[in-house]
Amino acid sequence: MIENAKVAVVGVGNNTSALVQGIAFYRSSGSLVGIHQPQVAGLGVGDIDVVAAFARSDGKVGSDLHQAILAPPNNFPRLDVELPPSGVTVQRGLVDPAGIARVAEALNGAEVLLYSAPSGRPETARAYAEVALRAGVAFVNTTADPVARDPSLLDRFERAGLPLIGDDLASQFGASVLHRALLRLLAERGLTLVSSYQVNLGGTEDFRNLVENPDSKKQSKLNALGSGQVQLAPLAYMPHLKSQKITHLNVEAQGWGETAISLDVRLQVHDPSGAAGVNIDLIRLAAAARRAGHGGYPPEAAAHLKSPPGTAV
Amino acid sequence: MIENAKVAVVGVGNNTSALVQGIAFYRSSGSLVGIHQPQVAGLGVGDIDVVAAFARSDGKVGSDLHQAILAPPNNFPRLDVELPPSGVTVQRGLVDPAGIARVAEALNGAEVLLYSAPSGRPETARAYAEVALRAGVAFVNTTADPVARDPSLLDRFERAGLPLIGDDLASQFGASVLHRALLRLLAERGLTLVSSYQVNLGGTEDFRNLVENPDSKKQSKLNALGSGQVQLAPLAYMPHLKSQKITHLNVEAQGWGETAISLDVRLQVHDPSGAAGVNIDLIRLAAAARRAGHGGYPPEAAAHLKSPPGTAV
Amino acid sequence: MIENAKVAVVGVGNNTSALVQGIAFYRSSGSLVGIHQPQVAGLGVGDIDVVAAFARSDGKVGSDLHQAILAPPNNFPRLDVELPPSGVTVQRGLVDPAGIARVAEALNGAEVLLYSAPSGRPETARAYAEVALRAGVAFVNTTADPVARDPSLLDRFERAGLPLIGDDLASQFGASVLHRALLRLLAERGLTLVSSYQVNLGGTEDFRNLVENPDSKKQSKLNALGSGQVQLAPLAYMPHLKSQKITHLNVEAQGWGETAISLDVRLQVHDPSGAAGVNIDLIRLAAAARRAGHGGYPPEAAAHLKSPPGTAV
Amino acid sequence: MIENAKVAVVGVGNNTSALVQGIAFYRSSGSLVGIHQPQVAGLGVGDIDVVAAFARSDGKVGSDLHQAILAPPNNFPRLDVELPPSGVTVQRGLVDPAGIARVAEALNGAEVLLYSAPSGRPETARAYAEVALRAGVAFVNTTADPVARDPSLLDRFERAGLPLIGDDLASQFGASVLHRALLRLLAERGLTLVSSYQVNLGGTEDFRNLVENPDSKKQSKLNALGSGQVQLAPLAYMPHLKSQKITHLNVEAQGWGETAISLDVRLQVHDPSGAAGVNIDLIRLAAAARRAGHGGYPPEAAAHLKSPPGTAV
Repeated sequence: MIENAKVAVVGVGNNTSALVQGIAFYRSSGSLVGIHQPQVAGLGVGDIDVVAAFARSDGKVGSDLHQAILAPPNNFPRLDVELPPSGVTVQRGLVDPAGIARVAEALNGAEVLLYSAPSGRPETARAYAEVALRAGVAFVNTTADPVARDPSLLDRFERAGLPLIGDDLASQFGASVLHRALLRLLAERGLTLVSSYQVNLGGTEDFRNLVENPDSKKQSKLNALGSGQVQLAPLAYMPHLKSQKITHLNVEAQGWGETAISLDVRLQVHDPSGAAGVNIDLIRLAAAARRAGHGGYPPEAAAHLKSPPGTAV
Repeated sequence: MIENAKVAVVGVGNNTSALVQGIAFYRSSGSLVGIHQPQVAGLGVGDIDVVAAFARSDGKVGSDLHQAILAPPNNFPRLDVELPPSGVTVQRGLVDPAGIARVAEALNGAEVLLYSAPSGRPETARAYAEVALRAGVAFVNTTADPVARDPSLLDRFERAGLPLIGDDLASQFGASVLHRALLRLLAERGLTLVSSYQVNLGGTEDFRNLVENPDSKKQSKLNALGSGQVQLAPLAYMPHLKSQKITHLNVEAQGWGETAISLDVRLQVHDPSGAAGVNIDLIRLAAAARRAGHGGYPPEAAAHLKSPPGTAV
Repeated sequence: MIENAKVAVVGVGNNTSALVQGIAFYRSSGSLVGIHQPQVAGLGVGDIDVVAAFARSDGKVGSDLHQAILAPPNNFPRLDVELPPSGVTVQRGLVDPAGIARVAEALNGAEVLLYSAPSGRPETARAYAEVALRAGVAFVNTTADPVARDPSLLDRFERAGLPLIGDDLASQFGASVLHRALLRLLAERGLTLVSSYQVNLGGTEDFRNLVENPDSKKQSKLNALGSGQVQLAPLAYMPHLKSQKITHLNVEAQGWGETAISLDVRLQVHDPSGAAGVNIDLIRLAAAARRAGHGGYPPEAAAHLKSPPGTAV
Repeated sequence: MIENAKVAVVGVGNNTSALVQGIAFYRSSGSLVGIHQPQVAGLGVGDIDVVAAFARSDGKVGSDLHQAILAPPNNFPRLDVELPPSGVTVQRGLVDPAGIARVAEALNGAEVLLYSAPSGRPETARAYAEVALRAGVAFVNTTADPVARDPSLLDRFERAGLPLIGDDLASQFGASVLHRALLRLLAERGLTLVSSYQVNLGGTEDFRNLVENPDSKKQSKLNALGSGQVQLAPLAYMPHLKSQKITHLNVEAQGWGETAISLDVRLQVHDPSGAAGVNIDLIRLAAAARRAGHGGYPPEAAAHLKSPPGTAV
């Protein structure tokens, strides 16, 4: 029987809460509901052990992981599974480059380091990549900060026989996935796009950060939609939504005889579920590649990333 | 320069109104908006001449085609193009098998016979196929009545070197196309479908006929959606909608950790535009195949049909 | 301190489940959420004791009330309150007029008889009114069957000093209430209604009965909306919705300069909650009127009824 | 027969376009569609003559009024009415206090001065009120800038026998009117509000100004909704919408047994129509009050104003 994959996580926010609770939930329930790939290289979604965790906030460092994932401002729902103490105490993450050696020592046998901190701190992201290189573990960067897109870093992972996966996680199902699919469908059927808008409302800390610093993400989103006719409304942070994200989409098009076609969509999802549902695949991919001695970027990861190696920084 | 394709139409309802007005509109405007294929075998969307038309209702027989397509109960909008008398007088269609010879004589040089009458009269549909065979023209069956699915008929067209296209037109863009695309997207992303419903409201005569005789169409629609979890509400005929069709779709699914995903869609289209946007491709395909001497069923037509040869009757 | 009101219920469907569970919930939680009137004549929503219950189905007769309200086809959700055995065993209701004396004996001290069976059995409704007269208790008819609108019955209750409340419960909040409010708002602001539609989807037995026998209810609903321009789609029974009702409303209007105004609404409610939220007021009203010796129809009930005395049968 | 009311307008934006086109439309068509009050003090909606107009932009000053209302950035639709030259040339408005005398001379017999410039220039608003006092005409302030709420100004109009109407126009029908009505309906029915949000998208210059300077208006809107549980998303300026405004509203509530009620609304209106539909009433009210010698604030205006005299500045 195959051994469980061991993962260390950086960041103990909602996405980690969804990942950790979900692994426990699927392990105990045997459910396959909502799972993208039941098996990746022989590993089921429950075959992951989180062996170390790193955070920055005083409210989380020092707590048991199963307690820390439920502490505010995290607001992902409590899944229907028991969470006894995990035995993993959240450690203080990197605060300066000098910490690299310390953190590398503290990975506790991990095969994969999952970097799941907020986007927008490129130096921290790279420092954790150095941790992975030093410790000899695979690295998964879920943020928009350029790591896998840095050719020299990628080259070093490749030479070390360590997998490097990134950058910028594409959600399992969200507004971008849906909007892009609708625009593609219209084009396939020969309709002409007249206008389109997307409005997003959310209640997580991640969402609040985006509201306060919208520019980079907005452009990346527009690029992803690949259409100059799509308008994005400013993000609206609404704490009562907690980890839910609500999207209002409109598409106005013309068909035969230039007659009008109108499409209005309301989508409601749990944002952290969308991240965890993809992270579970990337972790397994990374663990399997490391076990097989395949360093560098595994092309199977491409479907799950917004900015794989080779795309613009 | 390639010669225009000559078509005779059976049925002077909304779909024929959309087709005839649209051809005139695109011919005069040069617009390419809303067109699925600008060219099929060298034929543009304006390169079609309607040379004969057949109807059953006293209100249409004897009128000029450009007048008949605007007569009630037709309620497709008047497109922004002038419609001077067409020179084609609507003739009385088949009323009994004995009329086959008469109608075959009256096709006025047509290369293609487009059967665009209401669904639900299989004998009439077959009789018109006999007209086409006798006159040596291609046949396009847009209705759900089995014609191309009848192997012996298909064989006779094949041996005669005449194209036979059918059965049951798939709209250029409508509720089925959209619903199926959404369900497929969910499955691709690994979400689990919990429930889904579709409600359709419309105001055409065709829609009223379906309301009064819903069973066959409903089953065909459910088959097309390919999911036992989709519920179809009874069709609602609302005359004030005229040729517009409004669809309310809901999809409830589960993602990672069995968390909920809700999708609500409102779609508004002009139903006859969806038909005309596909008929324009089928006519050109049929004309081109006949000119090339290719009899039988042209496989390129499959994407536009709900029940091509080989599917269940 | 005021004594609890004692009520006997006829019908152990979803509406009774919502009523009984809700009384227990509010009594134990002290919550005032979702309550229309915290006090009616000194009675709080928890100050009601159900002392007898009558049903027709073998699956319910003989069970404890707290078990029977949860038995299929009932599908109202289980509220967050414990339901130990109630001590009230569901009895067989009237099967023929001869049963009137038996049932009148079995009311177990009730002050109010709440008739909450399915609509469409006018003779049964009247027979239960006879039960109430014979037993000297107030009668509340929540169905569309004419009881309070029968002047001779009303006169007999009046002379007996017994309250008679009916007919046809208006939900606390539902599609009719909302649609009417929107149309009234439009009119107040001087807009001109162009068209409006309402589509209802539901999953209860009551809803299924309406789907199979739509006519009376549909007309009553149209009357309630008071506008010839409102179109009602056929009701759609979708079992997966359970006790939820989903309504899609559209209103198209014109404002200044005949410019267009469009309003699309999606409403989701638990139908039995809407009934229970009104029944709780009618029971308290009836009990208080009986205690005060006020026979006949109490005018304070009018706001909660679709067809009070004096309206057409 | 009563004489037409003579009005001078300040501001030649979309709201003035809607007003001027609408007056012409109703005068020529005889339609009563979309009109709040067919008659005010004997004056119909067509019984208004615009006798002078003032603007700031070089693109409008010097043009005929009927040309200026159609010039960009105005984007209100062209109504279905002929607009021959009006004979009124747009004049340059106030640029400094010294202009008061000049403008007062240029009112061309107006009885009412309608101040319909963008909000946010309180000194300009007051200077035009001085124009009205000097010229002896009634004043209508449609902006949020405090004029009628200034007790000393109101006192001067009162003593001069001149009507003063303001401040801040309430649209004939828009998001605030609808949202407030829905929240009130919920409260009336005894439901408990859990959360509510409102998202607004628009394409006019006025809307763009609000996007760039949202604070005052947002607070005023929240005050109008009268509920701390309503969240307003940032306004989204989308030029393709032109003069249309789209609003997405959500209301989450709880009813009996704390069961959930969800309400989702999409509203689409032409914003300038909502303003013109109210301005037409205020103009007639002001003209009638002046003719009757009633100075000061006419209480009949209250229903049309967000901030009448006595409310906070």
